[in-house]
Amino acid sequence: MSAPRSPRQKKTARAAVMAAALSVAAVPLLRGDEGMWTFDNLPIKLLKEKYGFVPTPEWLDHLRLSSVRFNDGGSGAIVSKDGLVLTNHHVALGQLQKMSTPEKDYVKEGFLARSSKEESACPDLELNVLVAMEDVTARVLKAVDPEAAEKDQNDQRKAEISRITKASTDQTGLRSDVVELYQGGEYWLYRYKKYTDIRLVMAPEIQAAFYGGDPDNFTYPRYALDFAFFRVYENGKPLRAEHFLRWSVDGAADGELVFVTGHPGHTDRLKTVAQLEYERDFGLPLYLEVARKKRQDYYDYARKGVEQERRSKDRIFGVENAIKAVSGEHEGLLDPALIRSLKAAEDSLRKAAAGAKDEPALKAARSSWDKIAAAQKKLGDRRLQTAYRRFDATKVAGLANAIVRCVAEVAKPNDKRYEEFRESNLESLRFRLFSPAPIYPDMEEHLLAATLKDALEKLGPNDEYVRAALGGDTPEQAAKKLIADTKLIDPAERKKLVEGGEKAVSTSHDSLIVWARRLDPVYRAQRKWYEDEIESVMTAEGNRVAKARFAAYGKGTYPDATFTLRLSYGRVAGYELGTTQVAPFTTFHGLYDRAIGMGGKPPFDLAERVKAAKTKLALDAKLNFITTNDIIGGNSGSPVVNAKGEYVGLIFDGNIQSLVGRYAYEDTRNRAVAVHSSGIVEAMRKVYGMDALADELTGKTR
Amino acid sequence: MSAPRSPRQKKTARAAVMAAALSVAAVPLLRGDEGMWTFDNLPIKLLKEKYGFVPTPEWLDHLRLSSVRFNDGGSGAIVSKDGLVLTNHHVALGQLQKMSTPEKDYVKEGFLARSSKEESACPDLELNVLVAMEDVTARVLKAVDPEAAEKDQNDQRKAEISRITKASTDQTGLRSDVVELYQGGEYWLYRYKKYTDIRLVMAPEIQAAFYGGDPDNFTYPRYALDFAFFRVYENGKPLRAEHFLRWSVDGAADGELVFVTGHPGHTDRLKTVAQLEYERDFGLPLYLEVARKKRQDYYDYARKGVEQERRSKDRIFGVENAIKAVSGEHEGLLDPALIRSLKAAEDSLRKAAAGAKDEPALKAARSSWDKIAAAQKKLGDRRLQTAYRRFDATKVAGLANAIVRCVAEVAKPNDKRYEEFRESNLESLRFRLFSPAPIYPDMEEHLLAATLKDALEKLGPNDEYVRAALGGDTPEQAAKKLIADTKLIDPAERKKLVEGGEKAVSTSHDSLIVWARRLDPVYRAQRKWYEDEIESVMTAEGNRVAKARFAAYGKGTYPDATFTLRLSYGRVAGYELGTTQVAPFTTFHGLYDRAIGMGGKPPFDLAERVKAAKTKLALDAKLNFITTNDIIGGNSGSPVVNAKGEYVGLIFDGNIQSLVGRYAYEDTRNRAVAVHSSGIVEAMRKVYGMDALADELTGKTR
Repeated sequence: MSAPRSPRQKKTARAAVMAAALSVAAVPLLRGDEGMWTFDNLPIKLLKEKYGFVPTPEWLDHLRLSSVRFNDGGSGAIVSKDGLVLTNHHVALGQLQKMSTPEKDYVKEGFLARSSKEESACPDLELNVLVAMEDVTARVLKAVDPEAAEKDQNDQRKAEISRITKASTDQTGLRSDVVELYQGGEYWLYRYKKYTDIRLVMAPEIQAAFYGGDPDNFTYPRYALDFAFFRVYENGKPLRAEHFLRWSVDGAADGELVFVTGHPGHTDRLKTVAQLEYERDFGLPLYLEVARKKRQDYYDYARKGVEQERRSKDRIFGVENAIKAVSGEHEGLLDPALIRSLKAAEDSLRKAAAGAKDEPALKAARSSWDKIAAAQKKLGDRRLQTAYRRFDATKVAGLANAIVRCVAEVAKPNDKRYEEFRESNLESLRFRLFSPAPIYPDMEEHLLAATLKDALEKLGPNDEYVRAALGGDTPEQAAKKLIADTKLIDPAERKKLVEGGEKAVSTSHDSLIVWARRLDPVYRAQRKWYEDEIESVMTAEGNRVAKARFAAYGKGTYPDATFTLRLSYGRVAGYELGTTQVAPFTTFHGLYDRAIGMGGKPPFDLAERVKAAKTKLALDAKLNFITTNDIIGGNSGSPVVNAKGEYVGLIFDGNIQSLVGRYAYEDTRNRAVAVHSSGIVEAMRKVYGMDALADELTGKTR
Repeated sequence: MSAPRSPRQKKTARAAVMAAALSVAAVPLLRGDEGMWTFDNLPIKLLKEKYGFVPTPEWLDHLRLSSVRFNDGGSGAIVSKDGLVLTNHHVALGQLQKMSTPEKDYVKEGFLARSSKEESACPDLELNVLVAMEDVTARVLKAVDPEAAEKDQNDQRKAEISRITKASTDQTGLRSDVVELYQGGEYWLYRYKKYTDIRLVMAPEIQAAFYGGDPDNFTYPRYALDFAFFRVYENGKPLRAEHFLRWSVDGAADGELVFVTGHPGHTDRLKTVAQLEYERDFGLPLYLEVARKKRQDYYDYARKGVEQERRSKDRIFGVENAIKAVSGEHEGLLDPALIRSLKAAEDSLRKAAAGAKDEPALKAARSSWDKIAAAQKKLGDRRLQTAYRRFDATKVAGLANAIVRCVAEVAKPNDKRYEEFRESNLESLRFRLFSPAPIYPDMEEHLLAATLKDALEKLGPNDEYVRAALGGDTPEQAAKKLIADTKLIDPAERKKLVEGGEKAVSTSHDSLIVWARRLDPVYRAQRKWYEDEIESVMTAEGNRVAKARFAAYGKGTYPDATFTLRLSYGRVAGYELGTTQVAPFTTFHGLYDRAIGMGGKPPFDLAERVKAAKTKLALDAKLNFITTNDIIGGNSGSPVVNAKGEYVGLIFDGNIQSLVGRYAYEDTRNRAVAVHSSGIVEAMRKVYGMDALADELTGKTR
């Protein structure tokens, strides 16, 4: 099970050797089309056996180099030689919101650049393309003294990672991240080409893109035009893209083999059962409690007026989306059969560890499960603090805290800093800190007051955070004063402070900077506790468990998602649900059926342009479709490509049955939901009159 | 909670008095729009409070007298002054199948009579209209000696019922049935106007009527044109209908109050928990086992050729339908919460009975639950015999058995006969026995062999039924001989035997009559055992439980369904399912969306006429819709009427969540599924070009 590799990718033979040397259990069972595979370790044999397809190194490189990461959370692909990038509307939503004004609401009205002059620069969007991958496991592990205390090992590891990334950035000028895979079983240096001059080209109205709203989110059948186009510029000109995905006008057919590349954000498939039980019983319920409160805060603000409603749209989308996703995950964890099956797998590995004689990796993990469970319990005891001491509850409050932290951290040697302030991350950080995206004082005040009120209620007046944050005031008083007296709304003020360094910050009288200085020690103490007591144990013991898994199974499986590039395979397929069958495709007919069937009530009303286009549209055109690919949040905007490497669809959702995928791939009804390539072009031409762009996309102008 | 009554309906004050005198518990909770109400006892107060609607006696009489029972199992309504009757295609299916030939397959191709001359007589269809209702509880109970043994009480009750129906038939010439309600809490004499000259007017192709086939059955959203028109003739001319439902061209709106009249076949909402647990653990699983085997037998036969496939269509539909319905019921019973809630209600009544001091009805029921449980157990011990000794496994075998039984029974005094052979039922019986509907010898042989094989396998060679049925042959040999040597395929032969009476039958050498004579004693012994040991206990003790319920709750509730006329109320409403919302309506758009989305694969392919009509149809027209009405099998073909008494829809299905309705009304997601009145007319005009009929229906020609 070896993968073809591009010259840049070096191979580690360790896993293969270990897998060959030991055979505690069979290869772990992959269910259905399971797997978010790294590009260095694809299930080539499986693909060949199951689908008769063998990807060439060129095919893989082309796919990888056409794939794009949206650094504010999402995926995309380059789809024309002139740097056109296609992603989801909901991935673009943050930028759309930032670019909108009370006079011109691109979220509500959409955005259509009919010439390159009309393409509009995004305030703070960074795109990454993964250009190189290097296994640095040996280097990282060598820097760690296995005899040292766990928290020291943690420090040593982080310091080495910091050195690796800095050296890489210095040497190549590329964004360089060290990615921890298999919970520390492997470390890889990923180098990215980074683009920051990104311009918005086209976005439908949110009502067309997010048709069906919260009810239809994580649902199928869907009828959403969830797409948006950006263009990458370099030196003020459209990127001359060496790699881009060619468009398939017909899109994917039923049963066809398809691939998804993208950046799944986070899975917990290697977590121990104790950790999952904690999530089920405490973690997720608490998360949902906080998120529901947040949602209420946004609703309350949005109700104040039309403009407030406009400003809140992306926040409300985000929190509703999260609530629905986490509710689905929680449902999944509540299934005793799932926990039983995970427990059986874990027990088998623990048994192997307990009985191991000569296998050091297995022996070393013997007590790891218990230690993780103990750390988990410790974390649970402070879960309220972790949840309700919110340091970035509002935009400007988060920026103030980040500035105070930033100037202190950058004064330290690079390898002593918090990870996010290390040299390799500073450029991206500054980009975010100095973003000209609008900040609305009344919204800030509303949310800050609500957040402080929650903290007071849940943690009590004597909590350190509460005392520091309130400074003797009521939550409303504190929020009012803090927002009224800050100048940080202006990016230039933030820049002045960061560039003035510790001195400027420590002498500032800005209300929020003073406030953030008070909060800083609370933040640092809490983070230290978390890193020393919890994270270090979880990392070290998780690493031992991962090594034991390696000893038992080799690299026959894939690592948890880490918001880095992965490839998944699958096929276009309907499924059985309840007593009936769900169709693999929807069409424009279905969109109008749903709108009329729901009586046109929001969120099932049609955007005006969509309503008007009915007589022009080919109603039979396919609109959305589903595949068995293994995806999760972060894959939003991912391209779906066929075996020829052509663009056939745009991932925008997973069905509700896919959400348990955070913990395990469900192999009968898990479906990724995508916009069909033919539906995108049909809408571009008939609904939006964007023929020139459609021509560029489909290669008609080439 | 008293209902307006027509002059023919007499009131029993007993229940009201009992309810006033005693107050063991509150009125039983009605959930949502629960209830299949008899026309003498409508929840007037509730309707007024909840919907602000008070039906007048005239409104109710008009509705009742426009409602029609299809005696082969279904409901319908008179919809024009010229006796046009509208029901489901699947209610008409049996007749369509009987009227079809290898040359002209009305099931597959549909049937369109474009003039009255083309309206085609049905071979054996009987329609009933309920013209009078009379409470005969006092008469029936008076005839029963409460000191007699239970089986004697059973005989006395049946004899009295037989006298009542005979007297009524003699006196009025109307079909007269005594209906047992509230498990013997009440007995009502229902008189029906009976129509037997029924002609087929219009039926779509089965592919349009039953679009989505078995997968979409008991499912919603649906896109089915499940309608068919008949016309009632009297004296060779179309019926001049005094009562018929006027058509609503716009149909029902979202949220609108609607009513359904019809003949729900069977519910078990008053069964004891012991009975339901029996069904859950043994009854339904065994039913499903037998039905799945039957389905396999039909499949095997249908695979023999195109003509065999044609002949089997209605059987396959019937058995698939039953399997899906019963699977849904079984699912419902497996829900521990349901059983818990039913048990809590039962315990409360049992507690009241145990603690009763002066309430004879409550005291009398004290041991009833235990006795029912014991009888249930006894029945369970012989459940294999009950299930696998099949006396009507094939059409002609069933007719042979019925003839042998019939001549013996009619020789007895009327009140000593099996119920189905009493005078009042004889005309309907003869109609069925002498039906000219086609019988296919090869199909009969195939099914008889399969049935006998099952019996041999499950009951063993020494079972009395098996010995009598096989007569020493193998199942294949027996079936071959029996079908080859019978003349009963010919209705004239059957008529000759029945008219020749016991003598003709006892001397007949017809293979199946000889066979049926051998089986007759086995049948009679088994039926006697069932009636004496099981039915008598269930009836008598069920009667006591029903009386105890009356004592506690009065007539504040409705009786179990009995395939007699009921009225349910509800409203047009979508519902939440999983994480999304189900629309109250579907449109023609949805039909094409589903066909394309499923790649046109059967059963999701479009009938040719439907495919061709796409450009002509108003695609926005509503096709199907859902309501909260409480319905069950037998309601198929029921009219949905609005508060003005107009025809707004045609019941044809319930969603899967409604199936638990056999045991309890589910008040959040239970939905009845109907064809929308505007969709029917749109299809009649644009798909089938039946404008004259559509004009008659919508009153354009009046």
